[in-house]
Amino acid sequence: MADSPNCDLKSLSPLQLFERVTEQGEKVRALKAGKAPKDEIDAAVRMLLSLKLSYKTTTGQDYQAGLPPKDLVLINNGTTKEEDEDLVDPWNVQTSNAKGVDYDKLIVRFGSSKIDTDLINRIERATGKKPHHFLRRGIFFSHRDMDQVLDAYENKKPFYLYTGRGPSSQAMHVGHLIPFMFTKWLQEVFDVPLVIQLTDDEKYLWKDMTIEKAHEYARENAKDIIACGFDVNKTFIFSDLDYLGTSAGFYKNIVKVQKHVTFNQVKGIFGFTDSDCIGKISFPAIQAAPSFSSSFPQIFNGKENIQCLIPCAIDQDPYFRMTRDVAPRIGQPKPALLHSVFFPALQGAQTKMSASDPNSSIFLTDTAKQIKTKINKHAFSGGRDTIEEHRKYGGNCDVDVSIMYLTFFLEDDDRLEQLKQAYTSGELLTGELKKVLIETMQPLVAAHQERRKQVTDEIVKQFMTPRKLAFEF
Amino acid sequence: MADSPNCDLKSLSPLQLFERVTEQGEKVRALKAGKAPKDEIDAAVRMLLSLKLSYKTTTGQDYQAGLPPKDLVLINNGTTKEEDEDLVDPWNVQTSNAKGVDYDKLIVRFGSSKIDTDLINRIERATGKKPHHFLRRGIFFSHRDMDQVLDAYENKKPFYLYTGRGPSSQAMHVGHLIPFMFTKWLQEVFDVPLVIQLTDDEKYLWKDMTIEKAHEYARENAKDIIACGFDVNKTFIFSDLDYLGTSAGFYKNIVKVQKHVTFNQVKGIFGFTDSDCIGKISFPAIQAAPSFSSSFPQIFNGKENIQCLIPCAIDQDPYFRMTRDVAPRIGQPKPALLHSVFFPALQGAQTKMSASDPNSSIFLTDTAKQIKTKINKHAFSGGRDTIEEHRKYGGNCDVDVSIMYLTFFLEDDDRLEQLKQAYTSGELLTGELKKVLIETMQPLVAAHQERRKQVTDEIVKQFMTPRKLAFEF
Repeated sequence: MADSPNCDLKSLSPLQLFERVTEQGEKVRALKAGKAPKDEIDAAVRMLLSLKLSYKTTTGQDYQAGLPPKDLVLINNGTTKEEDEDLVDPWNVQTSNAKGVDYDKLIVRFGSSKIDTDLINRIERATGKKPHHFLRRGIFFSHRDMDQVLDAYENKKPFYLYTGRGPSSQAMHVGHLIPFMFTKWLQEVFDVPLVIQLTDDEKYLWKDMTIEKAHEYARENAKDIIACGFDVNKTFIFSDLDYLGTSAGFYKNIVKVQKHVTFNQVKGIFGFTDSDCIGKISFPAIQAAPSFSSSFPQIFNGKENIQCLIPCAIDQDPYFRMTRDVAPRIGQPKPALLHSVFFPALQGAQTKMSASDPNSSIFLTDTAKQIKTKINKHAFSGGRDTIEEHRKYGGNCDVDVSIMYLTFFLEDDDRLEQLKQAYTSGELLTGELKKVLIETMQPLVAAHQERRKQVTDEIVKQFMTPRKLAFEF
Repeated sequence: MADSPNCDLKSLSPLQLFERVTEQGEKVRALKAGKAPKDEIDAAVRMLLSLKLSYKTTTGQDYQAGLPPKDLVLINNGTTKEEDEDLVDPWNVQTSNAKGVDYDKLIVRFGSSKIDTDLINRIERATGKKPHHFLRRGIFFSHRDMDQVLDAYENKKPFYLYTGRGPSSQAMHVGHLIPFMFTKWLQEVFDVPLVIQLTDDEKYLWKDMTIEKAHEYARENAKDIIACGFDVNKTFIFSDLDYLGTSAGFYKNIVKVQKHVTFNQVKGIFGFTDSDCIGKISFPAIQAAPSFSSSFPQIFNGKENIQCLIPCAIDQDPYFRMTRDVAPRIGQPKPALLHSVFFPALQGAQTKMSASDPNSSIFLTDTAKQIKTKINKHAFSGGRDTIEEHRKYGGNCDVDVSIMYLTFFLEDDDRLEQLKQAYTSGELLTGELKKVLIETMQPLVAAHQERRKQVTDEIVKQFMTPRKLAFEF
């Protein structure tokens, strides 16, 4: 699956450029206010002028602080989006709101359904397990046909889980763990097979990367995924580059999808142009095909029509809207979906974390010291400018990245609530809050690293070998 | 590989529509002259009026006998073709000249090289064998880099042969045998490995056909191909739908090609539009990939960079022009090519034979009686209207389909020359010439049927199992 590319200025959207200029302006002001050395200020000013020039070249307008570009950005389904809407597709997540993307609006725009209390209660009744905190806290917030999956489950009909990752670099960050942590929980409470696609072919097509490198990243990423604690007897992890050459069932489903989707459609959904390579244009079918059980004859004993449930971040939804559109036309059930919010960058919730920017993320390879430094230096704060003001007015949890991260990773509901209240009231200072986050993240990452060390090449091979799993079909 | 689709009126080009109107007009005149029943004449007239209406709708012009449409037809590489040029792409072969496509012009337009006497002599010297009559008679008339293949061969460097077929129906016609007959000869005189691609995925994508049907046709066609007498120890036949799911090397080459070809390029080369499915758009990479030896690690021991030589009909050249363009950019040698002329329809050399029209072809399943009837009834004659005129002015070998077919299938050079002279002089009548053709084709088809009967499912399986061949690499 895709995440944000490492863009140069030319590939930035007008809105992205606007934000880069704004950021750089703030940097210049900070340097001047802090009486930084003259050459440092000069360099920052030169960069600011260069960014303003790029902005003017791209938009035809002069940069005006506080006035984002007026143009319309093409978004999914060929509709256009107004400047105040969020940009969400498999390669970009962009919002001008520090609270992050407006997910309620996204549900309306994408036509999915909100995961409400009724659905969460139903999951609890069906599984007899307390719902995961990702459900309780709205981190998985949207779905398609989850009620049908529960109907089937209650009627003892089988289903399976499918998720994935685009292995764009060797190191994964903590945000990449979200779908896997949740998928692991789903697998445990429902006791169903799981397939995990590593789209190394996609990364080769999109990035300036050799096919060997993409394939290597897939195996490295598999180790981090396995370290989340999946059961080898119930989980099949596959690299497209390997598995496509191993399974005729998979390729047949790919061709079936490819026959039923036109260039016009992928142009509308993904914004492809005539200058895109034919590999990109046909790739969506490769991400679609694992939604059909006949792609895995070794697991499902050749059975078609076994329901699929896909937990993923909402930016992957365009792939599966397309898949759900095609499914009935090739005689297959539509996959159901559970959508998560994006994991915010340390710098704030306007963008998704990116593996390409080391400072936007806490990496699974970071040391305790790196985690501490990154959080202290980069975690965007909802606190006030002075201790006095903070004590008086309190912090803003809605934009504070430490609070956001704790919402993802601090499992103790009571403790989280206490922290939020104390921060909002001004009782808890930003430094103290960051300390809690550091103390939460350090052992979490260290434990992951410890588990990852146990993942030998032999274990990777076991997970990635096409085989029957511990289920009868 | 592709052949002509069974078009309805809407999908016909202006030139094709023009010819349909002309034909129908001639039919009406013939019916009237022959004093046919009134209702038969009326039906033919109604069809003529309907065709004229379609022509006007499509071209915006009234049909005028003898005046082909003025518009330009888009052809390969985004260039336009004048009305007097031939239309040649993987799905259409169309010319207004009864002698057939002008191949010298095609060489210039495609930028290939003529197979001249020097090259034929060099092949004879290199192999020590008399050149095949397809070479001597200009049936294989054009090439790309055949001299480099001969350089390599003379320096004891290996190469391999690659050809293929799009399995669009169960029954193949005699024209389909041409590339296989020639490839068999090449394999024998050079003693090299051969891979034969059956593009069942392509047929599924292009035709109104299930994936299972396309796959079944591939296996049925494999029997006819094997019946040409290929050596199982030196030949690998594969269905894309099977082999793609068996060989990671093949898929890797497909993705590499797909990364280096844009939609703009395939639009220019193949005329794809935004309404085409993404499977068609990415398919050219699947026909390209067998040009690279790393698609067959089991045959070439994982060696890359082994030179490929592709014997095929000239209409497949667009695929391989694209392949040759991509090859250096993915670090692979360009495949060399040998191009054949098209096999004419019984009705005349204006179009390629089509498996979709039973009367345009002698099928490999036809009985002796069917062959006789088809030739007598449908083989376009270059003879005169009356015996007297024929004796006086002689026949026209340039447009006579019996002479053309004998050029393909009558191996005896002297006999063929005698027949041509006797027909040109008027000594040989059309009926007598057709009798020679019938007596040539009947045993040829019967022998093929006999050999095909010997091809068991077990033998097909042997040919189609990925394996090492009788060559060391």
